[in-house]
Parts: sequence; structure tokens; C-alpha cells
Amino acid sequence: MSELKNDRFLRALLRQPVDVTPVWMMRQAGRYLPEYRATRAKAGDFMAVCTNPELACEVTMQPLERFALDAAILFSDILTVPDAMGLGLYFESGEGPRFRKTVRTEADVNALPIPDPEKDLGYVMDAVRTIRRELNGRVPLIGFSGSPWTLATYMIEGGSSKDFRFTKTLAFEQPQVMHALLEKLAQSVTAYLNGQIRAGAQAVQIFDTWGGALSHAAYLEFSLPYMQKIVDGLIRENDGRRVPVIVFTKNGGPWLEQIAAVGAEGVGLDWTIDIGAARERVGDRVALQGNMDPQMLFANPERIRTEVKNILASYGNGNGHVFNLGHGITPEVNPEHAGVFIDAVHEFSAQYHQ
Amino acid sequence: MSELKNDRFLRALLRQPVDVTPVWMMRQAGRYLPEYRATRAKAGDFMAVCTNPELACEVTMQPLERFALDAAILFSDILTVPDAMGLGLYFESGEGPRFRKTVRTEADVNALPIPDPEKDLGYVMDAVRTIRRELNGRVPLIGFSGSPWTLATYMIEGGSSKDFRFTKTLAFEQPQVMHALLEKLAQSVTAYLNGQIRAGAQAVQIFDTWGGALSHAAYLEFSLPYMQKIVDGLIRENDGRRVPVIVFTKNGGPWLEQIAAVGAEGVGLDWTIDIGAARERVGDRVALQGNMDPQMLFANPERIRTEVKNILASYGNGNGHVFNLGHGITPEVNPEHAGVFIDAVHEFSAQYHQ
Repeated sequence: MSELKNDRFLRALLRQPVDVTPVWMMRQAGRYLPEYRATRAKAGDFMAVCTNPELACEVTMQPLERFALDAAILFSDILTVPDAMGLGLYFESGEGPRFRKTVRTEADVNALPIPDPEKDLGYVMDAVRTIRRELNGRVPLIGFSGSPWTLATYMIEGGSSKDFRFTKTLAFEQPQVMHALLEKLAQSVTAYLNGQIRAGAQAVQIFDTWGGALSHAAYLEFSLPYMQKIVDGLIRENDGRRVPVIVFTKNGGPWLEQIAAVGAEGVGLDWTIDIGAARERVGDRVALQGNMDPQMLFANPERIRTEVKNILASYGNGNGHVFNLGHGITPEVNPEHAGVFIDAVHEFSAQYHQ
Repeated sequence: MSELKNDRFLRALLRQPVDVTPVWMMRQAGRYLPEYRATRAKAGDFMAVCTNPELACEVTMQPLERFALDAAILFSDILTVPDAMGLGLYFESGEGPRFRKTVRTEADVNALPIPDPEKDLGYVMDAVRTIRRELNGRVPLIGFSGSPWTLATYMIEGGSSKDFRFTKTLAFEQPQVMHALLEKLAQSVTAYLNGQIRAGAQAVQIFDTWGGALSHAAYLEFSLPYMQKIVDGLIRENDGRRVPVIVFTKNGGPWLEQIAAVGAEGVGLDWTIDIGAARERVGDRVALQGNMDPQMLFANPERIRTEVKNILASYGNGNGHVFNLGHGITPEVNPEHAGVFIDAVHEFSAQYHQ
């Protein structure tokens, strides 16, 4: 494997010195880019891009051609694992992800296989290898998966949900069935992320999009321990280099101390928590990733630059900050505004790294 | 006005001693009750119930006939004020609230009137008077409104939203226009809640359903100061008795210290924050209202009772707790489970008030 030409992102996660704060964007390869929409139209649909390693590589590289991003992230979906378990992932336009089969009983849980990454998710592993080759050491490649709790919500509800009624009913009424499902998912995600690491992912992120829908006690019972299991089971060194892990629970701000204790190098923050306050609480233990409101990209360039300055000032001097949005970039954003954002992070952060 | 036979709710908000912890439920008069569905079917739709004081009174009383609730809450909608401003509120089944007109420019904001409560929202004032008469001192009556920020999101988006794209674009791009709108809304809500208090509301709650979609800095700029203005402008004593105010920002857990400083007697908590931890942070300044996950009502009675015990134990000994759900009750809940919840609060809380 080739030497990394830009390793700011990996260094920041290890809280090592960098020249400027590294930056990437969740969903940076996505619908806000006309070139992405063109590839997707050519392929047919979202899953056709995901399952074709050449196309997944093509769209992964697109934002790097436009912007001075410090990391690439595998183009894929958080729900590939339940799809490989046989639930039949599909997308209805404007409806978000859906599964043809749901998981709601003990028998449903028992019937679920633990996917073999190379055999059952080979298209993802091939995409990782293809992208690594194409990147040729330009920036590190991030692999990812959904968290067990987040995957479980989609598997039980059959898609997105506002109130997680069926998921919570199962968790509260039959916690042992929920734990069996989460245990299976933790094993599957561990194998899946280790597959990505073996294929070339240089860091991995666990997306816990819906952990924040739980009470503190329920989060500590149903979400966090299974992310902990994954972190414990991951390959942490590859090619002689540390493979950092980032855990990101949206709306997890109130529980930062416990999230910071699972052993991941980085903790992702949404925009509802001040990053300086978060650093005071846990910044001596982990790197922090975040946290501009994605909707700030609808503002004019000067307002975006001011917001970047504010967040950099809030984090303050020293190492351990990876700049990002607090959630995925919104499809209607003007790509030029994304460029303003990324350039502003580099321009205004040098003073904090002297 | 008649003497109050049960004033636990008001006493708890003033952190005065009570025999047991008072309890009510957000949306306690609502779709989970077959008798409510019958009244609504008879009336035609939701707004027909809201705008008819006799029917609004009828459904307000329904949960009190079933359960040992310690407060009644006016049956109405958080969006009556923008409706009275001329935006044309309506409901599409399964779609949530919608407005026929949106507010997106300075001219739109300038054109908005400040409604006169008795003239433009007389049906609400009449409902309050009718309900007070019907209650006859049984329990206190809570009045309410949406917060300026929350009302603004619906007025700008034209209905519910996932990402608040137009609202945030206005806030970030033209903050002076947004502030003019929020100022007008704060004046309107103050007049509206004072109208409810004069008509007989014995406490009021400000629902900031969407303040939690903001960054900490944006919340302190666009939501909290306008709730502060309302609290500052409210009639705080009526009929020789204090009229307590409750402010409730969903997902406001990270900002509790500042919310507790606006001068309201009570702060509402959603279920994502541990109430004991919240009490440690602000419980010497305000009463706390909450905070069971509404979805816990889908669990079996024994699990519900355990959860009530856990929350009571987390709050601990002493005064200043009003038990509630962390958000409105879900329409699919079995009413018997709501009864189990309410009885459990009374049964298990006596030990904390000795």
C-alpha cells in the first residue's frame, strides 16, 4: 500500500499535532453534487451505485476532485448488513430505506444469519479495494456501518420511523429478544468492519443515528454496550498504522462521558452541543468530530465562514479536532457553499495549531 | 371561582410539600381515547373540536373521568396564534398541521397582525371559561401555546419539517427578519397566554417542540430569549394565587442551566435526560416536569410500573417534581396502560414525600 500524502485526519483522531484542522463531510458523496446525480441516473438507482465497485469508487472520488477534503468515505449505506441478512433493502423515492421483511419475534431473530463479509458483502469489500487503489495515498479512506441499535430500528419497523413504536415495544416487553438481535448485529457489524479494514479502510465510523431516541437508561442498555462490543472486537492496527474508530450517536450530547469511555479514538458530535463544552467534558480522553449545523450551508459564504470561526474558537488551541458537519449534508445545498466551508476550516484553523 | 380541591400540581411547581407526586400527560385528551375519537367524528375534524368551546370542554374532561389526573389541560393546538394571524391552519390526515400561507420575507412579517385574544381567539378564551366552570375546582387547568421559534418553523415551512431548511436559511441569512418575526410572535403569545390566564388558566406551558433542532448558540439567539420575553410579560398572580409557568424545549437537555434561568417555575424534560441528573444541575432553582418515554406505555403494566419507580427514585426525596411523559401520548396506546402509569405515580411516590 502506498504512503499517505495527507494524514491529518488520522493524526487528529490520535490527538497528534497537525498543521491545520482536517475536515470531511458526512454524505460528502451525494445528491448535492450534479456529477453524483449523473452517475446515479446512469446506474439506475442508489443501490445500483452501492453494489457496483467501479461506480461506488467513482462517486467516492467526486467530492475529492472539487474540494480539499482530508478524508474519503466509502460510498455505501448503513443498512447493507441487514440487507445481507436477507431482509431485502430497497428505496422508495422520497420515502427513505425500506425492508421487504421485518424482524419482530424471537423466531425472526433466530433465523437471521451472520453475514460473511467477503462472501455476502463482497461488493462492499471490492469497493473498498477499488477506492484505495484509486486514492493512491491521497487521503485516508473511512469505512462505516450503522450501529446495532440503529440497524435494529430499521429491521423491526421495516423502514424509517418517527416514534420507534415496534422497536421500543420489543425492547421494553421482551428485552431478551432485543438483546439477542443486538448481539447478532454486533457480531455481524464487527465482522463487516474488520472486512473493510482488511480490504483497506484506514479508519471506521459507527453511525448510531437513532440512539438519541432512547432514554439515558435505555441507551446504556440497548445501544452503547453493543458499540462497545464492536470497538472491542475491531482490528486496531493494519499496515503498521493505528486504525482509529469514531462513534457517533446523533443527539447523544447528554451522554458524552459514557460514549467517550467505550475505547474509540473519536466521538462524533451533532450541532446541538457546543464543541468547547464537549471538549471540557471529555476532550482529554478522545478526539471530537464535528459539528456545524448542515443547514448553515444554506446561508451566504460570509455567514458560513463566521460559523466555522466560531466553532474553531470554541474548540480552541491544540489537537484532537476533526471538523465535520453535525449530520449529513442536505441534498439541496449549493456545492460552492460546501467548498467555502471546507476552505474556511483550513484557512482559519492554522492559528490553533502553532 | 371555586376553591381548588386538588392543588398538588400547583404546589409541586412552587416546590411546596405535597402528599404524592402530581401527574398529568401531554395530549391526555387525544386519539388514544375511544371517547375522544367519537367526539371528533361527531364534530367532523380536529379544528371543529378546538373551535367549539362545548366540545373542547367535553374532550378536556374525558381523561379526568377515567384517570386520577392532577391537572386538566385546555384542548387546543399550539398553532392557534399563527392561524389567528391569517395563515389558514388546516390538517391533512396523516400529514400533520399545514398552513395555506407561508411567511418567508420581510414584507410577509410586516403584514402579520398581532391577534387580540378575546376578538381573534375568542373560541379559546370561551373554552377556558367553559372548562373552568365544568371543572368546578376539581384540579387546576393548564393553558398553553407554542413558543415563538416553534411557531415560526411551521409558519415559514408551511407545516412540519425534518430539516427546517427555509426557517434556518432565513435565520442565518436574514437574522433581522427572523428577529422581527419572533418579536411579533412573542408579543402575540404573551397576549394570548394572558388572555387564557384572565379567562381562568391556573398555569401555562410554553411548548418549544423544535428548539432542540438548533445549535446551542442559535437556540440562545432565536428561541430562549423569546420565551424569556413571554415569561417576563405574563400575569403571574390571579385570584390571589401564583400562576406558574412551565417551559418545555424538546431535546433541550444540554441547555438546562440556561432554560432554568428564564424565570419559569417549571422546566419540562423529555425522556432523553435522566431526571436525577437534571435535578442536580438545576433542581435548586426550578421544578422539573417529566419524563417517561411515551413509548413505555406500549410495554406491559409491570414494566410500566418499574419505569415509574425508576424515575421517582432518580428524582429522589423532596418537592418540585411533576410527573409526566417526556412528550405527548401516542395515539395507539391502550388507555388501560395510561391508567396503570398514573396510578403507579401516586402509589409509589408517597414514600418520597414524608
